[in-house]
Amino acid sequence: MQQLVECVPNFSEGRRQEVIDAIVAAIAAVPGAQVLDVQSDADHNRTVVTFVGEPEAALEGAFQGARRAAELIDLDQHRGEHPRMGATDVIPFIPVRGVSMDDCVALARRLGQRIGDELAIPVYLYAKAASRPERESLPAIRKGQYEGIRDLIGNDPAHEPDFGPRRMGPAGATAVGARPFLIAFNVYLNTADVEIAKKIAKTMRFTSGGLRYVQAMGLLVEGQAQVSMNLTDFRQTALHTVVEMVRREAARYGALITRSELVGMLPQQALLDAACWYLQLDGFTADQVLENRLVGPP
Amino acid sequence: MQQLVECVPNFSEGRRQEVIDAIVAAIAAVPGAQVLDVQSDADHNRTVVTFVGEPEAALEGAFQGARRAAELIDLDQHRGEHPRMGATDVIPFIPVRGVSMDDCVALARRLGQRIGDELAIPVYLYAKAASRPERESLPAIRKGQYEGIRDLIGNDPAHEPDFGPRRMGPAGATAVGARPFLIAFNVYLNTADVEIAKKIAKTMRFTSGGLRYVQAMGLLVEGQAQVSMNLTDFRQTALHTVVEMVRREAARYGALITRSELVGMLPQQALLDAACWYLQLDGFTADQVLENRLVGPP
Repeated sequence: MQQLVECVPNFSEGRRQEVIDAIVAAIAAVPGAQVLDVQSDADHNRTVVTFVGEPEAALEGAFQGARRAAELIDLDQHRGEHPRMGATDVIPFIPVRGVSMDDCVALARRLGQRIGDELAIPVYLYAKAASRPERESLPAIRKGQYEGIRDLIGNDPAHEPDFGPRRMGPAGATAVGARPFLIAFNVYLNTADVEIAKKIAKTMRFTSGGLRYVQAMGLLVEGQAQVSMNLTDFRQTALHTVVEMVRREAARYGALITRSELVGMLPQQALLDAACWYLQLDGFTADQVLENRLVGPP
Repeated sequence: MQQLVECVPNFSEGRRQEVIDAIVAAIAAVPGAQVLDVQSDADHNRTVVTFVGEPEAALEGAFQGARRAAELIDLDQHRGEHPRMGATDVIPFIPVRGVSMDDCVALARRLGQRIGDELAIPVYLYAKAASRPERESLPAIRKGQYEGIRDLIGNDPAHEPDFGPRRMGPAGATAVGARPFLIAFNVYLNTADVEIAKKIAKTMRFTSGGLRYVQAMGLLVEGQAQVSMNLTDFRQTALHTVVEMVRREAARYGALITRSELVGMLPQQALLDAACWYLQLDGFTADQVLENRLVGPP
């Protein structure tokens, strides 16, 4: 199976379509980089690009996108609702298939070095690639935004970048990191009582004693109680574990799951893991999936 | 997603490695045809090749394999334990992804026409591609084998081929058809009592009143009762339906499922169907699997 990394760079431009198109084109021009999604928000004045490729293609695509963004976006002219510190604000690498988190951390470091050296943009490593515990959180790194960091970067030790110069040009600074794939997953109950969904969410979520890689809240959606969750590391806290725990909690309140939904995409492995758990397929390997045996272009 | 057809031609040669290699090479030389498996049996004197590709590549690969086999295999010289009627004995097309059974039936007809016209080999359409009900069964078509059919093909209306001449050369005749993917699936119980596995198998299998697309038998494997099954059309009788019915039947006898196993490969869809059923993912579509968005190399 081909190795696959997802990369989701965020650019500080959500209004000028020609700029967005030029950045996306720079990424898509890299052989092996496949752009899957482009989401622009005019109020945030920000664009999120999702692309995938083998590790080297992901690295090169991210670099080319960042280079083009530095040419076309001037942070001194940028206003938007979303916090930002750079033309390319943040670049996470996400393991999808056949690559480890360590591989993605290594990619982040190599990309950070290149952006620092070749584009003279200060780079902060974040999330799993962070070089200091206080830089694991992106909001903590971005505190003060472009204008605030620009004034501190030259002297404040806390603002010393991991790569690149200790000064900011109009392209600002970029956070580069690695993180697990995030799955947005909702479960609907056969009740209109949102309090049941809220109680279940409280039991499920990490911050109130629940599962380590689960964020959860209870909502009422079109008259139906919904437990809305983010699974922040499905390899550690699996989809089936989450569903069966919601099911048990719901039963406590006399409720049942009517259906669930995945918002957006997810790696094949997340569903294979669920199928194997329920079917009790000990010894199954992903290369038993016929499609995973295919190599090369059709 | 790329359309994908599996093709599993059976050739009447399981001993001369250079002949086997030449046939496999003829298939693999077709752009887009990917050989996944080659199984030769010297006692049967027979080789089963598994390859996949888009529909046109599957058709061309099958034709090139049949052409080479007709050049290299002489049925007048062939002896083996497995019944056979042709150098290329049988060619089934199997829908894997993005193609229907009707598409595979159409492929079988086109291939049959080409083998008949260009190679002057009589072709019988079988299984889902059969032109007559009595030709759905391959053993019924192959009854009498090469020698017997050779003597009847010229005059007996029951032996009139669907394509090609009403006479056989040393390449014999070929059955060409379309059928669903077959999944070989075993379930192990926490008991050494094979009678429980046999009772469950009887309830499960079509021929004794069970599920339509299930063949089943009860075995004792390394001291553990096993329900051994073929799922002959997983789109109609699903993996999860089978597992949950085995689970319920086992409970009747005070037994539990300890694990299950898939023998060989299966299409991704079979496991996605199971994951969606258990997780209750109404509205899920296969293009939510990130890997399925990729174009070109999978």
